Amino acid sequence: MCQMTKGKQSLMFEKAPRLISAASVVGSKEAEGPLGKLFDVCGQDDLFGMQTWEEAESTMQKEACVLAVGKAHVRAEEIRYLFGGDLLRQGIATSMGVEELNIPMFGLYGACSTSGEALALAAMSAAAGYGNYMLAVTSSHFGSAEKEFRFPLGYASQRPLSAHWTVTGSGAFLVAGHNCGEDGPADGDDGDTGTAAPFHHVRITGVTVGKIVDYGLKDSQNMGACMAPAAMDTILANFEDMSRDESDYDRIITGDLGYVGQSILLDLVQKEGHNLYKNHLDCGMTIYDREAQDTHAGGSGCGCAAVTLASFVLPKLEKGEWKRVLFVPTGALMSTVSYNEGASVPGIAHGIVLEHFE
Amino acid sequence: MCQMTKGKQSLMFEKAPRLISAASVVGSKEAEGPLGKLFDVCGQDDLFGMQTWEEAESTMQKEACVLAVGKAHVRAEEIRYLFGGDLLRQGIATSMGVEELNIPMFGLYGACSTSGEALALAAMSAAAGYGNYMLAVTSSHFGSAEKEFRFPLGYASQRPLSAHWTVTGSGAFLVAGHNCGEDGPADGDDGDTGTAAPFHHVRITGVTVGKIVDYGLKDSQNMGACMAPAAMDTILANFEDMSRDESDYDRIITGDLGYVGQSILLDLVQKEGHNLYKNHLDCGMTIYDREAQDTHAGGSGCGCAAVTLASFVLPKLEKGEWKRVLFVPTGALMSTVSYNEGASVPGIAHGIVLEHFE
Repeated sequence: MCQMTKGKQSLMFEKAPRLISAASVVGSKEAEGPLGKLFDVCGQDDLFGMQTWEEAESTMQKEACVLAVGKAHVRAEEIRYLFGGDLLRQGIATSMGVEELNIPMFGLYGACSTSGEALALAAMSAAAGYGNYMLAVTSSHFGSAEKEFRFPLGYASQRPLSAHWTVTGSGAFLVAGHNCGEDGPADGDDGDTGTAAPFHHVRITGVTVGKIVDYGLKDSQNMGACMAPAAMDTILANFEDMSRDESDYDRIITGDLGYVGQSILLDLVQKEGHNLYKNHLDCGMTIYDREAQDTHAGGSGCGCAAVTLASFVLPKLEKGEWKRVLFVPTGALMSTVSYNEGASVPGIAHGIVLEHFE
Repeated sequence: MCQMTKGKQSLMFEKAPRLISAASVVGSKEAEGPLGKLFDVCGQDDLFGMQTWEEAESTMQKEACVLAVGKAHVRAEEIRYLFGGDLLRQGIATSMGVEELNIPMFGLYGACSTSGEALALAAMSAAAGYGNYMLAVTSSHFGSAEKEFRFPLGYASQRPLSAHWTVTGSGAFLVAGHNCGEDGPADGDDGDTGTAAPFHHVRITGVTVGKIVDYGLKDSQNMGACMAPAAMDTILANFEDMSRDESDYDRIITGDLGYVGQSILLDLVQKEGHNLYKNHLDCGMTIYDREAQDTHAGGSGCGCAAVTLASFVLPKLEKGEWKRVLFVPTGALMSTVSYNEGASVPGIAHGIVLEHFE
């Protein structure tokens, strides 16, 4: 019965679910960055027609979901479960964002690792045959995150160079069962996706669920350092559980370690006998032009890894340019209350194995 | 492949996982209530040896987990995944609480419905064969919740009669695969629980995952009214998906609708042709003595349904006094930010079918 479990914290799916569609909705700063032209929707003023940053974030989530589902020519009623989360207190951007979709849903919180958490649960549910389609969505918004974690923007507080810039963006992913859509054109009622879905060659073949890793760091303005140990822990667990190493992946892609966190990760794994210098990529470093955009350590937030995966990584997997990647979104577990009470900032990272198949 | 799905939002497990152990840790007010003698651990001063309410809540979670696992004579390393959540911003009570257990974990947020969400995912993962043991845990704390959602306690704000009293408590549940422990005494390394586990006759036979239901209510001090429509939605979905009605359950047990929410639920379902007057029970009404304990509408919080299930409901299922119950924790999706921005308070409820078996 447990033939799919591997090692201590990983699963490898015998009948791997497919990732058949994705969508990215971002703000104006992200649109101006290196990936700008790859995103599906770029807002003009980061409010997306709403009155508040929170409503704007919810709107991005809804748009990303509708777009990911629409691209695959699937109807919302066909989606069995939705797995979603964001950074705000009580996950309010998700609750308000996905409400109108009317899909049975699981609310998640894993800080900036939530896109990995959502994809893991969506893949696990699809692989178990719990439904034909699962939807995973996450978001973050610079305005709502600054209000949540730091200061109202009007205070014009200075940011240290180790600080991240929260990505305004939402990414949504449609995961289908192993065989859904393989037996003919879409007819809208039996889980077929036919030739309509944007991705036909991407599978989620395994997951490595992360543990909470705490090195005792307390600087919430240096999240890269707080998250790097968790990234290492999950990457090494993946290697051990699946009997692999860095040479088995075309890319190992962390969520938002940024420049500071990346250098720590590379050092940490080197001490453990692994070399990620060649094939490591960090979404937080990819999404902005560090110098031109004044984003310091890099991008962060639930939306950072999600929109980078949707717009930049998945198309390369679809084309076969990359055959296998390990996607490892990283989260820093903290709140303003825990920070003010002097607690440390532990990290968590979830690993998703994405593979090209013919 | 999808033979286990039922209707639009439910699953019925062909090989239903077992709920083999549970533990409850509560505060002093809960200890003085009607269920006082049934709880495993009752704190003296609600601080559990810590300095802050948040640390106290984390400590309760850790204790509940250790106790639930210990009662079953299972080692923490044998637990594949942990599903946990709480009410605080960024789920910090869970992150800090379960960190030391070193179990790969999924952080959840479903407001007071989180115990249902955690049990649903634990059961789904166990039923899929993703591991022998899954752990589900949730918590709430009166002190940390008042600080999070209302006012510092020192302000002595008055509470309307429709307001709930947040339960100080944490409940943890150990879910095992269909056959784990059935083939002999525990030997600690192959998923056996032998005769050591506290429950031998309780299975999770199905789940009904909830949708977000929004009737447009905005009164955060009347959560019963906000959650009752979601409870109805999930209960009726369960009836339809599983071709059942109220006569198929010995009890239908909501999480924390309280006195106000219960009367709304009973009215709403009556209009839909169902009568829950005979076999409805609400954990928020069960946990306190309304008059003697001045708890107004009743108890609430992620811990309310969890500790009532662990201490009061599961022993009755184990003994066969109840053969089948539908456990429906209810959540009100809001934050102080959404409240201040004038957003409504939608509800969500997840249904768990628990059955006695010989």
